[in-house]
Amino acid sequence: MRLIEEHTIEDIALGAAVLGTGGGGDPYIGMLMARQAIRDYGPVELYTLDEFEDEDLIVPTAMMGAPTVMVEKMPSGDDIVNAFQAVGRYLGKPIRATMSIEAGGLNSVVPIFLAARLRLPMVDCDGMGRAFPELQMVTHTIYGISSTPFAMSDERGNTVLMETIGNSWTELFARSVTVNMGAMAMIALYGATVRQLKEAAIPGTISKAERIGRVIRSARVNEENPVDTVREAVGGYLVFKGKIHDVERRTEGGFARGDAHLEGVEDYAGQQLLLSFQNEHLAVRIDGEFRVTVPDLIVLLDIDTGEPVTTEAMRYGFRVAVIAIPCAAKWRTPEGLALVGPRYFGYQVDYLPVEERYG
Amino acid sequence: MRLIEEHTIEDIALGAAVLGTGGGGDPYIGMLMARQAIRDYGPVELYTLDEFEDEDLIVPTAMMGAPTVMVEKMPSGDDIVNAFQAVGRYLGKPIRATMSIEAGGLNSVVPIFLAARLRLPMVDCDGMGRAFPELQMVTHTIYGISSTPFAMSDERGNTVLMETIGNSWTELFARSVTVNMGAMAMIALYGATVRQLKEAAIPGTISKAERIGRVIRSARVNEENPVDTVREAVGGYLVFKGKIHDVERRTEGGFARGDAHLEGVEDYAGQQLLLSFQNEHLAVRIDGEFRVTVPDLIVLLDIDTGEPVTTEAMRYGFRVAVIAIPCAAKWRTPEGLALVGPRYFGYQVDYLPVEERYG
Repeated sequence: MRLIEEHTIEDIALGAAVLGTGGGGDPYIGMLMARQAIRDYGPVELYTLDEFEDEDLIVPTAMMGAPTVMVEKMPSGDDIVNAFQAVGRYLGKPIRATMSIEAGGLNSVVPIFLAARLRLPMVDCDGMGRAFPELQMVTHTIYGISSTPFAMSDERGNTVLMETIGNSWTELFARSVTVNMGAMAMIALYGATVRQLKEAAIPGTISKAERIGRVIRSARVNEENPVDTVREAVGGYLVFKGKIHDVERRTEGGFARGDAHLEGVEDYAGQQLLLSFQNEHLAVRIDGEFRVTVPDLIVLLDIDTGEPVTTEAMRYGFRVAVIAIPCAAKWRTPEGLALVGPRYFGYQVDYLPVEERYG
Repeated sequence: MRLIEEHTIEDIALGAAVLGTGGGGDPYIGMLMARQAIRDYGPVELYTLDEFEDEDLIVPTAMMGAPTVMVEKMPSGDDIVNAFQAVGRYLGKPIRATMSIEAGGLNSVVPIFLAARLRLPMVDCDGMGRAFPELQMVTHTIYGISSTPFAMSDERGNTVLMETIGNSWTELFARSVTVNMGAMAMIALYGATVRQLKEAAIPGTISKAERIGRVIRSARVNEENPVDTVREAVGGYLVFKGKIHDVERRTEGGFARGDAHLEGVEDYAGQQLLLSFQNEHLAVRIDGEFRVTVPDLIVLLDIDTGEPVTTEAMRYGFRVAVIAIPCAAKWRTPEGLALVGPRYFGYQVDYLPVEERYG
């Protein structure tokens, strides 16, 4: 066990924003919330799975919705407590701890907020090792863990609870209700025992995010080439350097979808990059050819600071480096690729691990 | 107490289809289901509110969705049991009986099916005295009774449970999920004590439906002018006789919406009637002038048989009589009209009780 204290929140949120591959919510808002909760209620105890009993029940918590909305509409804090407690009441069992379901600016710190507020422990793992746009896209699904009982709450006091026959049904229903709730809801889901999580979860995600965040923070102060430093820290490959030319966005079906066009600079001058996203970055095409796709991580870093650029922050003129990071091995199985491979998202291309193209 | 037996189901469904003002679901499907359940499990005991204890808990059950879909997609029966039991489990209290939330072909008999299947009593009342398209449009809302805990289940085994801050929120969320469930869901909602229902409910709806159904059944066998006989039995006014010319339909937002154009026949020759509906008939304009609107009941009867014509059954060439029936007094209060008056549905006209125009 180690403590998550006020000053570590920024590193976690920043590093998780890298793993969030453009999505996972604006880290700034999540940071403020979690920081304030630690200030009010004390630091959060972060445990590895091995430190719990096998039968202990863990319920992850998160924000669901279009990250673009998060900037304007702040969660109340009660909403996430309502969702979490609704699952607990429904199960009729004590919940031992919470965890992140995905790495991402907001969704790495929502559980920290909740853990501080309810004085609960938190587990150092998640269900993606990155962020993905849909609710069934977690390693829990590969291992047959149900997303339900699933609870979602809004800042007004509404709560919707579900018991479904499959995690894609939860996604379908919850996505509609998220739209009705104002394109954002706080959720609790994928309750599982520690025994199940030892098999299904991606371990160490919060520690990893903190480590990446620390590197970025020191790089932007000390380094001449922060992008290289960050790229090395995340074990990623440089794919492109370019200037954002234009970004087409549409908020549809509760998602922030769109495409960004980048024009190459430096060694990439004359090349064109097309980046497609659905909350998270999904695919990179350079001069019309697919170069990186889900489930590998596509990360945009500000060339000058090494800081991650979220999909909602992309603007004309930003100079960015495009980094690709190998995804967790669980995603490279047939079951994993069926859930989150390029063909699921409508791209007619086979998945090629990034290190086979760039390694 | 009296018994609802197999042979009374048809009368109840037929009479409720009149009160359903074109909506409330296809009576044929509901009839088959309820009949079979009584055959399998025995007759249903129908009680008045006075026959229960004041603290007894009553939970209504119904179908939610576009009636047009009902014709093709039959409920499984387990779905309504799932929804009902989800509310019971959530409340953690025994439910004494079920009831109809609205009068309508299907929704008068869904609770009969459930009562037979679970060997539960049923209460002779409802929350509308007719059918309305949206979930908050019940007299329960006027008296501050919450629609939640609300449960909805589909035939696949999915259940969604809600706890909302207002009945219009339940409508908003449930309508989206209904669409996701295939435009139809079985629901349990508006749990209330007998004490609350003595104030809030419309008493005697099932008996009334049965009485109307019996009149129609004998009229179509014996009468020369079945429409007149039925009109008298329901205490209604003849507004128009005409031939359906065309019907524009659109299934949108989980509703069957549209307009029907009728050309007058007999005394009404040369007049044009425009009938607007959203699951139920909402407004009648004759030669451009509003003549009948919600909350009064607009009923189409087949001129030859006196049988009610539902919105989904309207077809070119049908010869129908348009009957208007005064609604329950609770709907004529300011609170009632705010919920279900013509302006709520977007018609820029004040409500005029039908008997003031035709009485």
